[in-house]
Amino acid sequence: MTRVLVTGARGFVGRHAIAHLQARGFEVHGVTASAVAPEDGSIRWHRADLLDANDRRQLVGAAAADVLLHLAWYAKPPGYWHDPVNMRWLSATLDLVQLFAERGGRRVVGTGTCAEYDWSHGLCTERVTPLSAASLYASTKAACGEVLQAYGARAGVGVAWARLFFLFGPHDDPSRFVPSMVTALEANQPWRCHSGNHVRDFLYVEDAAAALAALAASPVEGPVNVASGRPIRLGDLAADIAGRMGRAHLVTIEPGGPQHASVTADVRRLHHEVGWRPACDPGEALARTIRWWSATGRRQVPA
Amino acid sequence: MTRVLVTGARGFVGRHAIAHLQARGFEVHGVTASAVAPEDGSIRWHRADLLDANDRRQLVGAAAADVLLHLAWYAKPPGYWHDPVNMRWLSATLDLVQLFAERGGRRVVGTGTCAEYDWSHGLCTERVTPLSAASLYASTKAACGEVLQAYGARAGVGVAWARLFFLFGPHDDPSRFVPSMVTALEANQPWRCHSGNHVRDFLYVEDAAAALAALAASPVEGPVNVASGRPIRLGDLAADIAGRMGRAHLVTIEPGGPQHASVTADVRRLHHEVGWRPACDPGEALARTIRWWSATGRRQVPA
Repeated sequence: MTRVLVTGARGFVGRHAIAHLQARGFEVHGVTASAVAPEDGSIRWHRADLLDANDRRQLVGAAAADVLLHLAWYAKPPGYWHDPVNMRWLSATLDLVQLFAERGGRRVVGTGTCAEYDWSHGLCTERVTPLSAASLYASTKAACGEVLQAYGARAGVGVAWARLFFLFGPHDDPSRFVPSMVTALEANQPWRCHSGNHVRDFLYVEDAAAALAALAASPVEGPVNVASGRPIRLGDLAADIAGRMGRAHLVTIEPGGPQHASVTADVRRLHHEVGWRPACDPGEALARTIRWWSATGRRQVPA
Repeated sequence: MTRVLVTGARGFVGRHAIAHLQARGFEVHGVTASAVAPEDGSIRWHRADLLDANDRRQLVGAAAADVLLHLAWYAKPPGYWHDPVNMRWLSATLDLVQLFAERGGRRVVGTGTCAEYDWSHGLCTERVTPLSAASLYASTKAACGEVLQAYGARAGVGVAWARLFFLFGPHDDPSRFVPSMVTALEANQPWRCHSGNHVRDFLYVEDAAAALAALAASPVEGPVNVASGRPIRLGDLAADIAGRMGRAHLVTIEPGGPQHASVTADVRRLHHEVGWRPACDPGEALARTIRWWSATGRRQVPA
């Protein structure tokens, strides 16, 4: 049984990835920084602060994994774009992968971001569209992917670099597009879409987790966009959400400027090399997300 | 008086940089990992292992510098191209610069390499020619430059990234082109140039040190090629050296294959923005280098 070590296993994407990895036959080991043992007893948990060198060393030895799915990083909006801690996550990741490779690990799936691409190009194609360093987050993620691929090529470790596009679903950060809109409308507050004509690629988090599990189980190396391949105008997405919630009267949609008007993913590698396509119905995924955030919003309203 | 902290101050380039920095009015502080205090009393020396986090912190506090000229890295041929220690130097550099910026440092000159560029393009122009990840050394250097620029832009620290091309001079690694040829001919051994038709940009190390001092004193930010701007065929360089040593009969020059036939530097930023051009006469520089390596070669011959 192939053993996979998942960092960020209790995060937005990681919590959904566990079942998909198990369904593909992996024995899953998860990492948590929390002192409290997670309730999910279906996997083996390891406690580690990944920014601590000793913790990393102990973790890699204890997990003795074949595959590393590395999701952990600092990603709290809006500060994460420029927080210097991005550099510590870069350093910690390089060290973690080296320890993992030296311990006998065979395959690494790291997670990058669509923000690595120069968005002035619109369509983002792996190894074709130039990368950009518009933020420290994007710069450190891009650096991480490039260095890990160079290291892996010599260390005999397969390295895939999943570039996640725009995700939505339960457990997201509440300040992001879908959660902030749903919780505002749930509270009967007006909501403004500032870039209605801008096109983005949104993927349901459950699908993203399934794609990462498929990538982990595949031999594909190098950068791979993880996205739906179904670009949508933000104004259309906002109108859909407002309509489903019956609160279109609370929503104002502005067109937005020309800069970064389109950020779409080339998903040919994901479809044809990894062999994965989204499985969740987009409408049902959006309905589930709205229900989850509506309930969360109601719980957070002061009594 | 502006204080500059020079890492790698006893290295191939660093040892030449000190006088040029002093000539530009800097108060120079140098870093050495050696336990023995260097003999040069004209600058203030700090002892530090830059791969040690505590040493870095103490160094930055003790030096209290305005400018950081960061030359230290692992660069021992041929292992340095793929040694995993490149990743530790990347991490150490990011941490050093962050400590320096948080301590009040204002300007960083980091040192990259022409190997960052994709050599299939021939001419290397900053911010135009694509970068490549053909080795871990090149990949970590490129990553370092990109991340430091993104960090500096927010931290209020000016970051210049000097991409050094091919250097020659005293104190180089003896396995490199010029030293290996001179010491072979000095020992009356045959020497073979494998890529005689290949074009490279060679700069005398004294000039490189002067260019770095000029860059440190300038406000120029971003990547800057540090090169002579005078491309030369390796076969012509070899014939020049052999002629000066009177040992052309020992030298065989092969043309070499088409791959990476030309690696030349666009020096417009160096000339027009930094305002620096090579000062040493190329023939005299080569003569001095031959004398130094000939003497070194004679000393190393077993008695």
